[in-house]
Amino acid sequence: MSGRNRLIYLPLGGAGEIGMNAYVYGYGAEGRERLILVDLGIAFPDMDTTPGVDVILPDISWLKDNLDRLEAVFITHGHEDHVGGVGHLFQQLKKPIHARKFTANLARRKLSEKGQDPKMVRTAPAFPETVTAGPFSVSFLPISHSIPESAALVIDSPAGRVIHSGDFKLDPSPIVGEAFDPDLWAEAAKPGVRALICDSTNVFSRHPGRSEAQVAPNLRPLVAASKGLFVATTFASNVARLQSLAKAGEAAGRSVCLMGRAMRRMTEAATEEGLLTDFPPTVSPEEAADIPRENLMLIVTGSQGERRAASAQLSRGKYFGMEMREGDTFLFSSKTIPGNEKEVARIMNNFSEMGVDVVTDDDGLYHVSGHANRPDLERIHEITNPQVVIPMHGEHRHLREHAKLAEATGRTGIVAPNGTMLDLAGNKPEVVGHVETGRTYLDGSALVGQFDGVIRDRLRIALNGLVVVAVMVDDDGDVLEDTWVDIRGIPEEVRGSASLSDMMEEHLAGALARISRKVADDDEALEDLIVKGVRKIAQDEVGKRPEVTVLITRLAAE
Amino acid sequence: MSGRNRLIYLPLGGAGEIGMNAYVYGYGAEGRERLILVDLGIAFPDMDTTPGVDVILPDISWLKDNLDRLEAVFITHGHEDHVGGVGHLFQQLKKPIHARKFTANLARRKLSEKGQDPKMVRTAPAFPETVTAGPFSVSFLPISHSIPESAALVIDSPAGRVIHSGDFKLDPSPIVGEAFDPDLWAEAAKPGVRALICDSTNVFSRHPGRSEAQVAPNLRPLVAASKGLFVATTFASNVARLQSLAKAGEAAGRSVCLMGRAMRRMTEAATEEGLLTDFPPTVSPEEAADIPRENLMLIVTGSQGERRAASAQLSRGKYFGMEMREGDTFLFSSKTIPGNEKEVARIMNNFSEMGVDVVTDDDGLYHVSGHANRPDLERIHEITNPQVVIPMHGEHRHLREHAKLAEATGRTGIVAPNGTMLDLAGNKPEVVGHVETGRTYLDGSALVGQFDGVIRDRLRIALNGLVVVAVMVDDDGDVLEDTWVDIRGIPEEVRGSASLSDMMEEHLAGALARISRKVADDDEALEDLIVKGVRKIAQDEVGKRPEVTVLITRLAAE
Repeated sequence: MSGRNRLIYLPLGGAGEIGMNAYVYGYGAEGRERLILVDLGIAFPDMDTTPGVDVILPDISWLKDNLDRLEAVFITHGHEDHVGGVGHLFQQLKKPIHARKFTANLARRKLSEKGQDPKMVRTAPAFPETVTAGPFSVSFLPISHSIPESAALVIDSPAGRVIHSGDFKLDPSPIVGEAFDPDLWAEAAKPGVRALICDSTNVFSRHPGRSEAQVAPNLRPLVAASKGLFVATTFASNVARLQSLAKAGEAAGRSVCLMGRAMRRMTEAATEEGLLTDFPPTVSPEEAADIPRENLMLIVTGSQGERRAASAQLSRGKYFGMEMREGDTFLFSSKTIPGNEKEVARIMNNFSEMGVDVVTDDDGLYHVSGHANRPDLERIHEITNPQVVIPMHGEHRHLREHAKLAEATGRTGIVAPNGTMLDLAGNKPEVVGHVETGRTYLDGSALVGQFDGVIRDRLRIALNGLVVVAVMVDDDGDVLEDTWVDIRGIPEEVRGSASLSDMMEEHLAGALARISRKVADDDEALEDLIVKGVRKIAQDEVGKRPEVTVLITRLAAE
Repeated sequence: MSGRNRLIYLPLGGAGEIGMNAYVYGYGAEGRERLILVDLGIAFPDMDTTPGVDVILPDISWLKDNLDRLEAVFITHGHEDHVGGVGHLFQQLKKPIHARKFTANLARRKLSEKGQDPKMVRTAPAFPETVTAGPFSVSFLPISHSIPESAALVIDSPAGRVIHSGDFKLDPSPIVGEAFDPDLWAEAAKPGVRALICDSTNVFSRHPGRSEAQVAPNLRPLVAASKGLFVATTFASNVARLQSLAKAGEAAGRSVCLMGRAMRRMTEAATEEGLLTDFPPTVSPEEAADIPRENLMLIVTGSQGERRAASAQLSRGKYFGMEMREGDTFLFSSKTIPGNEKEVARIMNNFSEMGVDVVTDDDGLYHVSGHANRPDLERIHEITNPQVVIPMHGEHRHLREHAKLAEATGRTGIVAPNGTMLDLAGNKPEVVGHVETGRTYLDGSALVGQFDGVIRDRLRIALNGLVVVAVMVDDDGDVLEDTWVDIRGIPEEVRGSASLSDMMEEHLAGALARISRKVADDDEALEDLIVKGVRKIAQDEVGKRPEVTVLITRLAAE
C-alpha cells in the first residue's frame, strides 16, 4: 500500500510516566524501517505497586523482535532514568551506544559492572558534527540540565529533521558544563524542524525557570553562619551543585568530604572527563574523622530519603564514624520527588530529635529545577519552530497540557503515550500502530514481567496475609488427621484468646473426615474445599480474606 | 516525697505525628491523679509500614491500667484524627464522652455502629459554661477550623488554667460555624494561663493563614465558565467548602448532587444540628442521572486518591451511573496530604486520558488550610499569654520549631513527644516520667500491636517472597522423599528455564537423605537446615533471600 518511506516515532517508556525513558525512531518502508533507540532508562519501585523490586525497566520485547533492524542506541545524558537500563539490557540488544564523553563514561561503567564490553560505548562529538546510524544522521546538540553535557538530538533522515530535546532547562549560567546557547539552537532549527519531541516535566510550572547560578550566593551565608558540623545532601549527578556547595564550604574555612557511592562515582567521572577544573580539594572520610566538626562540611547522598544512603544512615546513627549532634546543620539542597515525602520527613524528624537544624528549600533558596518551565517550553517551541510538538518525559497529564500549549500557538500538538507508533513523514503526523508496552522488573537478579503474577502475589499477601495448609491423603483416599495449618501475617490470637490456626486445624479435621472419595482423589476439589473453609474462618474471626496455599501430599503404600 | 498535687500532661498520640491524637491530663497526688482524656483519634495506614491495616489507633494500655482514675473523654472536633478512635476503643474505656453538638452527633454515630450506647456521648455547652470531671472544670472555647464547631478546651484545676487549642485557624469568616473571636479568647486568658498546648501543623508556613471566605469568589467564575459536567472533590468534613461549592453550582444554574458516604454523613449531621441553614437544595444520584451534564455539579469524596472513594471510581469508569468524558471539569478543592501524591496523580492521569480538564489548587485559588500558620501561632501565643507553650499535633520537627517560636518571645517552649509525662503544677514544668506508647492496628476486625510481628511478617514477604516447604519424617527418623516446595512472590523461572521450586525440591531430596538421626529427630535443627538450603538456592538463582515456612509432619507407625 505505502510506496513511500515512513519516519517512525515510538515511545516504549517515558511517555506516560516520569522515568524509564526509551524512544524508538525508524526510517524506511513500512515494517522495514531501520531503527535507533534514544535513551534506555530505569524507574524506581515503591511499596504500593512493586514491593521488593530493585529496578523498573521498560519492556523492550518489541525491540528484541526487531533486533535486526536496530542500528544503535543514543543516550542524551547521564541520569538514571535515561542511562540506567544500559547495564541491565545491553546483553539483549548488543548494539553500539553513542553518548557525549561524560555520559559515555557513566555508560561504560555500567557495562563493565555487568561484564560487558565497555568499548561498545562510543564517545560522540557535539553539534554540528554527526553520527551516522543507518539512514539516520544524529547530532548531539548541547543543552543545559542538572547534569553536565546533556544533549538534545538533532535527528536527520531523508524525511527531514526532528529534534528530540532530552531533558533540559534554559540556563545561561549552569556553573559546570555548557550554557544554553540560543544561537546554536537557532542554527540547528534553520533547515526546518518537522517535529520537536520535548521534555514535559515542568509544564505546570508557570514562572520561568531559575539558573543554577542563583543557588551559590544563598549557600555561602548559610554555611558561613553555621556553627557545628555542616552536612548537605543533593542529587549526586548535579555536579554543578556539588561544586557550589564545596565552594561555600571552602569559603567558610571548612574541609569538604564527599560521602556515598554515587557522589564518588559522579565526581570521578566528571574529573576523568575534565569537567571539574574548579572543584575545591576534598578530604576522605578517614581524614574527615580527625577534623573538628566546625571546620568540616560533608556532602552526602540520599536527598530522597533512600534507606541505605548516607543521609538516612546519618539520621539513624553513625556513618563512616561521623555522627550528627545538637548544633549541627543539615541542608536539603534538593526537592522531594513526589512519593518520597514520608521517607524524607522521617529523616528530618530523626535529625530534629538529635537537635540538628534542618534547612530545606521551602523558601526556594537552595535548589533550582533542572527542567524547562512553561515559559521556557514556549521559548524553545519558538526557537525551533517545529510543525509538530510531541510531548514526552511526563505523565499523561503533562503530555496533554504540553500538547495544549503547543496548539495555543498554532502548532500541532500530539499526545502519544507509550506504545503509540506515529509516522512523521507525511504532511500530517499519523498514528500507524500500537505496540504492547509495559514494565519489566529487576527483582534480585531475575527479570520479571509486570503481569507475571509474582509481584501481585506479594501485594496480596502483604494486604491479606497467608494461610498454609498441608494435608496428607493415604492410598485409601482418606485424609490423615494431622492436617497442618501455619499462618503468616494474620493475627494468631482471636476473641477469647483462641488460636486462629488451631481453629482452622480443628475445622479442617472435621470437614475433611466427611469428604467423599471423589473429592479426596481430586486435588482441585480438595484444595477448593480447604481454601473456602479457611477463608470463612478468617473472615468470621479476624475479618480478613487471606491468601491460601495448600500442599497436598499423597502417601503411597509402603 | 511530694506532698503537693501534680497537674499532669501526657500525650499518648499526636505529639510526634500528625494523626491519632490522644492527650491525657491529670490532677492529684502523685500516682493518684484523676484523669481526663482529650481526643481519641486514628491515623491512616500505608503500604510502606502498615500494609493491609484498616486503621491505626493509639496504644491506650496505660489508660487501661489506670482506668479507675479516668473521669471522662473530651473531643475537640469531628475530624477522624480526633474522634475516629471512639468507636473502636470505647468498649475498653466506657467513660462519658463530652463534645459540642456537631462533634457529639458524629461520635454517637460511631458508638451506634459498634453497638455501643450513644447516650454515653453528652453534648457540651460552649465557653464560659463548663463541664465538671473530677477535679477538672472544662470549657469548650469555640475556634475556627476546617470543620464546624471546633473547640479549644479551657481546662481548670486547683493548679490553674491550661488551654488545649485543638486544631484551629484564626478565621474571621469561616462561612459555616463560629468565626475566631479574639475578645472571647482574651477573656478565657484573663485569669492567667499556665500552659498553652498548641496545634503545630503549619508552623513552617510563614504567611498568615487565609480565610475560608476567600475560596468562594474563585469558585464561582470557574464553575460558570465550565461547559460539561462539573465535578469537585474536597474533604467531606469541610462543610463550609461544600456550601461554597454548592452555591457556585447553583449560581451557574446547575443541580448539585453529593456523592460518597462521608459526604452524606457529614451533611446529614450538620443538617441535624442546624448548621446548614443556607445550603442549596441537592438532588440524589438517581435524579442526577436524568439531568443534562452541563446542568449538573457533583461534589464527591476521595480528594486524597482513596481507591474506593467516588473520585477514584469516577476516574476508572462509572460511579452510580455517572461517567466523566471529554469537556468535563474535575476540581480538587483540596491539598494533597504528604504521602498521597501518587494516588492523587493516578486519578489526574486517568482523567487526562479521558480528556477531562483537571483543576487543582496549585495557584492557591481553590483551597485554604484549616490550621494556624506561623504568624497566627504567634498571635495566639500573644492573646493567651501562657507561661509555657507545649506544641502538639505535629511531627517532631514541627514540635521543635514551634517550641523555638515560643522561646523567641520569652516563653518556655517544651517539646514533649508521645509518652512524656509532664507536671505543670510547679513554677517550671518538669518531666516526671515516661510511659510506653505506640500504635495499635485495626486489621480486619482484630486489634494488633505494633510489635506483634504480624505486620512485620507481611512486609518481609512483600519484599522477599515466601518459600513453603513440607517434609515428612517417618518413625524411623527417615525423611520421606516427596518433599514439597511451593513458592509465592518469587520468580519461578530461573536461568535456562529451570524451575526454582524444582531445584529446591531436588536439593532438599539430596540434602535430607544424608542427615543424621539426631537432626531428623530435632524439629529446630531440621528446619534450620531446610531454611538455609532453600535461601542459598534463592540467593544464587534469583538474588533474593525469601522468607521460609517449613511444615514438618511426623508420621506415626500405622
